[in-house]
Amino acid sequence: MFQPRSDYTYLMPAHFGGAKFDPEAIVAQRSTSLAIGYETERESLEHYIPEGFELLAPEVQVSFSKFTEINWMQGGQYNLINVAAPVRFHGEKDQVDGAYTLVVWENKTAPILGGREQTGIPKIYADIEDLHIVRPHYATTVSYEGNTFLTMDFEATGAVTDGDLEALKAQFASMNTLGWRYVPKVGAPGAELSQFVLYPQGMEVESAQVGVGTLQWTEQTPMQNPVQYYIINSLAALPVKRVTQAVLTEGRAFLHAMGARVIE
Amino acid sequence: MFQPRSDYTYLMPAHFGGAKFDPEAIVAQRSTSLAIGYETERESLEHYIPEGFELLAPEVQVSFSKFTEINWMQGGQYNLINVAAPVRFHGEKDQVDGAYTLVVWENKTAPILGGREQTGIPKIYADIEDLHIVRPHYATTVSYEGNTFLTMDFEATGAVTDGDLEALKAQFASMNTLGWRYVPKVGAPGAELSQFVLYPQGMEVESAQVGVGTLQWTEQTPMQNPVQYYIINSLAALPVKRVTQAVLTEGRAFLHAMGARVIE
Amino acid sequence: MFQPRSDYTYLMPAHFGGAKFDPEAIVAQRSTSLAIGYETERESLEHYIPEGFELLAPEVQVSFSKFTEINWMQGGQYNLINVAAPVRFHGEKDQVDGAYTLVVWENKTAPILGGREQTGIPKIYADIEDLHIVRPHYATTVSYEGNTFLTMDFEATGAVTDGDLEALKAQFASMNTLGWRYVPKVGAPGAELSQFVLYPQGMEVESAQVGVGTLQWTEQTPMQNPVQYYIINSLAALPVKRVTQAVLTEGRAFLHAMGARVIE
Amino acid sequence: MFQPRSDYTYLMPAHFGGAKFDPEAIVAQRSTSLAIGYETERESLEHYIPEGFELLAPEVQVSFSKFTEINWMQGGQYNLINVAAPVRFHGEKDQVDGAYTLVVWENKTAPILGGREQTGIPKIYADIEDLHIVRPHYATTVSYEGNTFLTMDFEATGAVTDGDLEALKAQFASMNTLGWRYVPKVGAPGAELSQFVLYPQGMEVESAQVGVGTLQWTEQTPMQNPVQYYIINSLAALPVKRVTQAVLTEGRAFLHAMGARVIE
Repeated sequence: MFQPRSDYTYLMPAHFGGAKFDPEAIVAQRSTSLAIGYETERESLEHYIPEGFELLAPEVQVSFSKFTEINWMQGGQYNLINVAAPVRFHGEKDQVDGAYTLVVWENKTAPILGGREQTGIPKIYADIEDLHIVRPHYATTVSYEGNTFLTMDFEATGAVTDGDLEALKAQFASMNTLGWRYVPKVGAPGAELSQFVLYPQGMEVESAQVGVGTLQWTEQTPMQNPVQYYIINSLAALPVKRVTQAVLTEGRAFLHAMGARVIE
Repeated sequence: MFQPRSDYTYLMPAHFGGAKFDPEAIVAQRSTSLAIGYETERESLEHYIPEGFELLAPEVQVSFSKFTEINWMQGGQYNLINVAAPVRFHGEKDQVDGAYTLVVWENKTAPILGGREQTGIPKIYADIEDLHIVRPHYATTVSYEGNTFLTMDFEATGAVTDGDLEALKAQFASMNTLGWRYVPKVGAPGAELSQFVLYPQGMEVESAQVGVGTLQWTEQTPMQNPVQYYIINSLAALPVKRVTQAVLTEGRAFLHAMGARVIE
Repeated sequence: MFQPRSDYTYLMPAHFGGAKFDPEAIVAQRSTSLAIGYETERESLEHYIPEGFELLAPEVQVSFSKFTEINWMQGGQYNLINVAAPVRFHGEKDQVDGAYTLVVWENKTAPILGGREQTGIPKIYADIEDLHIVRPHYATTVSYEGNTFLTMDFEATGAVTDGDLEALKAQFASMNTLGWRYVPKVGAPGAELSQFVLYPQGMEVESAQVGVGTLQWTEQTPMQNPVQYYIINSLAALPVKRVTQAVLTEGRAFLHAMGARVIE
Repeated sequence: MFQPRSDYTYLMPAHFGGAKFDPEAIVAQRSTSLAIGYETERESLEHYIPEGFELLAPEVQVSFSKFTEINWMQGGQYNLINVAAPVRFHGEKDQVDGAYTLVVWENKTAPILGGREQTGIPKIYADIEDLHIVRPHYATTVSYEGNTFLTMDFEATGAVTDGDLEALKAQFASMNTLGWRYVPKVGAPGAELSQFVLYPQGMEVESAQVGVGTLQWTEQTPMQNPVQYYIINSLAALPVKRVTQAVLTEGRAFLHAMGARVIE
C-alpha cells in the first residue's frame, strides 16, 4: 500500500509518487514578456484586494509572457497573462511589498495546477496567441472557446540602453509575487485552507524595448465564458486612465521552486 | 477591500467573488461513456492504493466519457478518462466501499480545477478524442503534446435489454467515488491538507451496449510527457490479464455538486 | 517510378496512390445543423456573385453543421459554417438553380482540401465551437487564432411536425450546391483552371425545430485575421434586414462523392 | 456582379477579391530548422517518384521548420515537416536538379492551401510540436488527432563555423523545390490539371549546429489516420540505412512568392 514519505512533496495524484523536497530546486526558463501597466480608479480596484493588504497605487499591471526551454517541462513552453496590483501586506508577523496577483491565464494546465496548489497563484485557462510580430509591431489575443476577451498591442519605439537598462534589470531581478492560496471546505461554506503566500521571483533581463502599449478588455456573457465571465467583466470595468509603462523584455528566469513561504 | 462571506464557497481567485453555498446545487449533464475493466496483478496495483484502503479486487476500471449540455458550463462539454480500482475504506469513523480514483485525464481545465480542489479527484490534462464511430466500432485516442499514451477500442455486440438493463441502471445509479485531496506545505515537505473524500455520483443510464473492449497503454519518456510519464508508466506496467467488462452507455448525470464529504 | 492509373482519381500527393474512380461512392455522415437565413441589400450582395449567375433573392443563408460518424474519415467528425446565396446559373449549356457558395469555414483541413480541389467549394479554416446547449438555447462561436468573427444563437420555439416536417424534409432532400473551382496560373496573373461546379447534395432530416435565430459578424483587422479579414468584412457589411429562417435539424446525409459535374 | 481582373491572381473564394499579380512579391520570415537526411533503399523510394524524374541518390530528407514573423501572415507563425528526395527532372524543355517534395505536413491551413494550389507542394495537416529544448537536446513530435506518427530528436555536438558555415550557407541559399500540381477531373477519373512546378527557395543561414539526429516513423491504421495512413506507412516502410546529415539552423528566408514556374 502507498505511504507518502515525510521528506517528499507531492501533488495530486500523490499515490504514484512525488519528489524529495529540495529547497534548492531551480525553475529555469527563457522568457519574452510584454508588460503594460495602467492607472485606474482606486476604489474600484480595491474591491478585489483582500483585507490585510494596502493598495500602494491604483495601478493594474498586465503582462504577457512566453516561457520556453522550461527545465521542469523538459524543454516545453507555455504562455501566460499575469494581472497584478502593487500592494503592501500588513500581517501580524510580516510586512511585505509586492505584486498581488489578481488572476493569471495560462495556456497549459500543468503550470496552472502547480501555481494554484503550491503557491496560491490564481491561475486559470485561456488560449493565448504567441506574439504576432511585424516589427516594430507586436500583438497577442487572449480568448476562451473562441471568444476574444483581451487584446494587447505594442509598438516599439526604441531599445532600452545604458543606465535605463541597468535600472530595468534591477526592477526585474527581484519581484515579490503575492498570492492567496484558498481551498474550500468539502460539503460546507468557507475555507478549509486560506493562506497568503509570498513567492519571490526574478528575471535576468538581457534586452528591452520601450514603446506604445494598448490593451482592450471585452466583456463576456456567461454563455461565452461560463466560469470566468465575472472576472473578465470586473477587470473590463476598471477604467484605463493612463498607460504608465509599456516594455518588451527578453531574458531568462531562475526561480527557487520551493522558495515561497506563507505570510501571516 | 475584499472580504469573503461566511456563507459562500470560493475557488481561486476568491477575491472576484464566489457563490452562496447551496447544498442542493445540482450538476446536470448528458453522458456517453465507454467503460472497460480488466483484471491485473494484485500486488502491483496495491502500490498505488493508500494505506487505510483495502483493495477489494485486483481490477482496473478505465472509462472514457463525453459530457455535453453541462449546466455549470452553460451547455459546454468536455471529455475524460477515469481510472479507478474497487476498494473499501477502513477509517476510524467511516467504512465505505467505492471506486478509488487513481487518476483522471480531462481535456478542459475548468473541471480539472474544481475536481481537484473541491473533491480531491486527481485530475490532470490530456487531449482526448471524441469517439470515432464506424458502427459497431468505437475508438478514442488519448495523448499529451502529440504523444499517444492510451487507445481504447470497442466493438459493440448487442444492446443490453430487459433485466440486464435494469441491473446496469442500478449499477450506474449510485457510485461512490473516492479521492484523496492533498495540498502540499509551502516551503517544506509534507502535506498542508490531506483528506480522503467521498463523492457519491450517479448516472441515469438510458441505453447500453455490451461488446469487446481493448485498450493499450504506451510507455512515455520524460521528454514526451514531462509531468505525467511516471503515472502512465505505472499504469502501463500493470498487466491486462483479462477484460472483465466492456460496455457503452448513454444517459444523463445529476450530481449533488456539494454532496461530497471528508471521510475519516 | 510512379505512374498514375487512368481509372483512378488522385489528390496531392498523387505519387503515394489514389483510389479507383467509383461513380457510386457514397459519403455518409450524421448531421446536426443550425440554419439562419436573412434578407440583405441586393446590390451589395451581387458584388460577390460572379457573372453568369443571377441572384434569385437578396438573401444570405448561414448554416452551422456538425458532421459525425463520417465514413470517409473512419468515423471522425468536423464542424462547418456554410455561407450561400440563392442563384440561377445561365450557362451556354446549363441552366441550374442552386445555392452559390460564398465561403465555407471548416475546423479540419482534410475536408477543406477535398472540397476545394474536387468540387470548387471555397473552404477555409476557422475554429468552430460545438453547439453549447442550454435547452432551448443553442450557441456557437467562430474564430481565427483567438479572434471571434461570428456568433450564432438560436432559441427553439417548437418542433416541426406533420406537414411542415414533410415540407422541410423535401427542402433538405435535394440541394444544388454551386461552387467556382479556380486554380491560378503559376508565375502569371489569371486562372489556369476556372470552372463552375454543380454538386447535388441532400440530407435526410429526422427531426427539426424552428425558433428565433440571431447572428453577429465582427469586423477583423489584417493583424487579427491576415488571410480572411476582407471576406469577413465583406459579409459583415451586408445588412441583416430581416431573419427569414431559423431552423435546427438532425439527420443523416448521403452524398454521391463523385456526383459533381462542371456546368457551362 | 463579380468579374475577375486579368492582372490579378486569386485563390478560392475568388469572388471576394484577389491581389494584383506582382512578380516581385516577397515572402519574408524567420526560420528555425532541424534537417535530418538518411540513406534508404533505392527501389522502394523510386515507387514514389513520378516518371520523368531521376532519383539522384537513395536519400530521404526530413526537415522540421518553425517559421515566425511571416510577413504575409501579419507576423504569425507555423510549423512544418518537409519530406523530399534529390532528383533530376528530364523534361522536353527543362532539365532541373532539385528536391522532389514527397509530402509536407503543416499545422496551419492557410499555407497548406497556397502551397498546394499555387505551387503544387503536396501539403497536408498535422499537429507539430514546437521544439522542446533541453540544450543540447532538441525534440519534436508529429501527430494527427492524437496519434503520434513521427518523432525527431537531435543532440547538438558543435557549432558550424568558418569554412563549414560558408559551405552550409551556400547550400541553403538556393534550393530548387519541385512539386507536382495535380487537380482531379470532376466526375471522372484522371487529372484536369497536372503540372510539375519548380519553386526556387532559399534561406539566409545565420547560425548552425551539427549533431546526432534520429527519427522514428510509426505505422498508422486507417482508424488512427483515415486520410494519411498510406502516406505514413509508405514512408515508415523505407529503411533508415544511415543518417547522412543532421543539422539545426537559424536564419531568415526571403522567397519570390510568384517566382515559381511550370516545367515541361
